[in-house]
Amino acid sequence: MSELTTRAGALDAADELAGVRKQFVLDEVVYLDGNSLGALPANVPGHVEDVVRRQWGELRIRSWDESGWWTAPERIGDRIAPLVGAAPGQIVVGDSTSVNVFKALVAAVRMADSAGAAGSAGVAGSAGSGRDEILVDATTFPTDGYIAESAARMTGRTLRPVTPAEVPGALSDRTAVVLLNHVDYRTGRLHDLPSLTAAVHAAGAVAVWDLCHSAGALPVGLDEHGVDLAVGCTYKYLNGGPGSPAYLYVRRELQDRFDSPLPGWNSHAEPFGMRPAFEPAAGALRGRVGTPDILSMLALEAALEVWDGVRIEAVRAKSLALTDFFLECVAAYVPEGRVESVTPVAHSERGSQVALRCDDAGDVMKRLIERGVVGDFRHPDVLRFGFTPLYVGFADVARAARVLGEVLR
Amino acid sequence: MSELTTRAGALDAADELAGVRKQFVLDEVVYLDGNSLGALPANVPGHVEDVVRRQWGELRIRSWDESGWWTAPERIGDRIAPLVGAAPGQIVVGDSTSVNVFKALVAAVRMADSAGAAGSAGVAGSAGSGRDEILVDATTFPTDGYIAESAARMTGRTLRPVTPAEVPGALSDRTAVVLLNHVDYRTGRLHDLPSLTAAVHAAGAVAVWDLCHSAGALPVGLDEHGVDLAVGCTYKYLNGGPGSPAYLYVRRELQDRFDSPLPGWNSHAEPFGMRPAFEPAAGALRGRVGTPDILSMLALEAALEVWDGVRIEAVRAKSLALTDFFLECVAAYVPEGRVESVTPVAHSERGSQVALRCDDAGDVMKRLIERGVVGDFRHPDVLRFGFTPLYVGFADVARAARVLGEVLR
Repeated sequence: MSELTTRAGALDAADELAGVRKQFVLDEVVYLDGNSLGALPANVPGHVEDVVRRQWGELRIRSWDESGWWTAPERIGDRIAPLVGAAPGQIVVGDSTSVNVFKALVAAVRMADSAGAAGSAGVAGSAGSGRDEILVDATTFPTDGYIAESAARMTGRTLRPVTPAEVPGALSDRTAVVLLNHVDYRTGRLHDLPSLTAAVHAAGAVAVWDLCHSAGALPVGLDEHGVDLAVGCTYKYLNGGPGSPAYLYVRRELQDRFDSPLPGWNSHAEPFGMRPAFEPAAGALRGRVGTPDILSMLALEAALEVWDGVRIEAVRAKSLALTDFFLECVAAYVPEGRVESVTPVAHSERGSQVALRCDDAGDVMKRLIERGVVGDFRHPDVLRFGFTPLYVGFADVARAARVLGEVLR
Repeated sequence: MSELTTRAGALDAADELAGVRKQFVLDEVVYLDGNSLGALPANVPGHVEDVVRRQWGELRIRSWDESGWWTAPERIGDRIAPLVGAAPGQIVVGDSTSVNVFKALVAAVRMADSAGAAGSAGVAGSAGSGRDEILVDATTFPTDGYIAESAARMTGRTLRPVTPAEVPGALSDRTAVVLLNHVDYRTGRLHDLPSLTAAVHAAGAVAVWDLCHSAGALPVGLDEHGVDLAVGCTYKYLNGGPGSPAYLYVRRELQDRFDSPLPGWNSHAEPFGMRPAFEPAAGALRGRVGTPDILSMLALEAALEVWDGVRIEAVRAKSLALTDFFLECVAAYVPEGRVESVTPVAHSERGSQVALRCDDAGDVMKRLIERGVVGDFRHPDVLRFGFTPLYVGFADVARAARVLGEVLR
């Protein structure tokens, strides 16, 4: 038994989260793609069966009240809230991440535009017309950029793609809104949310963050750091299932000014009044749109039960230990020069994944998957491995690196 | 046994769709709310269990390819297509009805605006700037009006609510787009889609139809009647389950000009190219946005299997027979003057529901539900009964009217 294998055993034995793994359906595969689709929590199938057979099949229409379907978007939002450092009443679940990016950006432009924007709310906006730019993270997952382009077009703003590092220099009194991704989906680089948010606010602009690759993997601190609006998916580290609904965070102080471009009947102050004129609901409910997709949403609700009693700080500590250990094992097992990590070494700059540049990455990932190590390939040359602390252990990490070494030899 | 009960028995015995009822999970309740939430098809629970336990739980990320998740929106769109009279390749499933109304309206305004709009495609548009009005059905389900208001605001158009009957007189060379509901959700009135669409086209405008209350209940004929864009939900007569994803139809000839306000990565020509610049996919795929909600979507796919071998013309014939018979039973069982039907008598103007005005409708519906007859109440004074020909029989109809009579006596 190698020294690394022994170490892995010791690390697993000391892991305070080791017990959580039992709450997932896992097999002999080393699953390092939970940053793309989280594994199935063991309680989900039974819960979904109840939703389908009893709530839909037997109670039918009555379930909108009796099974709590109608209030699911805000109830599940409140369940996600502590994982991203938000007090209750600021998150609603529903729609895809792309649709939520659109809501957030258009609403943010309107906030930046509205006269008398309150500095105390972190948005010391000038009167509207001067703020004609939206800055967007040029390294973000592409959909954010596409949607930002549409939001800019439809609000008459100019879209300016910049890297997160360039944001402080690009901010000016022309900046209306800045959309940033907390963790780079390709490299795994963690951006400095507190200081970037502060810089955006100092320029009088609105800060919108995409948390797809950070929520559930590390502390986000939305309230603490004064983030204005945030969106995220729930099928990665939150294990909500394929295409489970995304969420939208609207900081409490800004909710009265949240003017949605998608004012569906679910965001009306009196949805069953069936009134011809729109009047927005109070609070985060303004982020709702149409009828929520109950099956996907309630699967997510069940999936979130695995977080009961889990401290996000413990998740972060284990995540860093896992990625540290993986890099160490890769150095030990993989022939020199065959891969190069593009993930930052500094903990403060690292999310919960490791991305390795490799010339024949597409082919290498195929062979890894054949041998029971599942990561993913990102065009053109990146092997991407996600480490989900709730169910990945250190022995998995050592095995993945060993198999990678064998494949590359 | 009364004469009506005898008639009901004979009608049920002669019903060519009677056998379809076995494919649903039903109980002793008379369920006349399938126009709000369709009953559970019996094959759905097993299918959803497979999606959760095997596709997600065992195959995990591989299911995007191996279980056909990625192509589900267009595959299921093609399954809906024959039910609304559309050839394949024109419908994608995903997002809520509200979100699809937004996509359709904004894209329609852009079509109306684009120079050289082709008369042959049914959209003989003038150059853009003159067409500054969106007409919206003032009697439509409120969310369509709210979203139309937002679409008008964001495209710089004026929104003008008119009743469907007023549409021909309201059309002019200022009209860019007309959004109409095929069946009035409150009264059950069926609007004349062929002639209204022709009138909209004659004025050079784009016709957008909401099919929520008609798809699955009667023939729609989207292709035949030259409808430009259409949206609809799938949880009413299509029995897709609570909040199951909606769909968007884009007429083939217009697809190249469909310029979406929600250009998410799923509508990119090369979604996994992760390119910074957006380039729209060909065809109906342009209507996709973000990652589809797979659980809800695949439940819908299973639910659509009940349509195998069912002719929509037979559904329509039975629907009219059911509503005729219900009105006849109501006349026989309900004390004179206690209710008044607001649903048109003429078959050509009737959807698949009957709406009865009743002073104490809210209280009456509560008592009906307590006695096993489920319809719904629409503010302020409407008892609404939906007739889903796939699983409602004539004996159900007679019983519902009899119980209504008892409650009102």
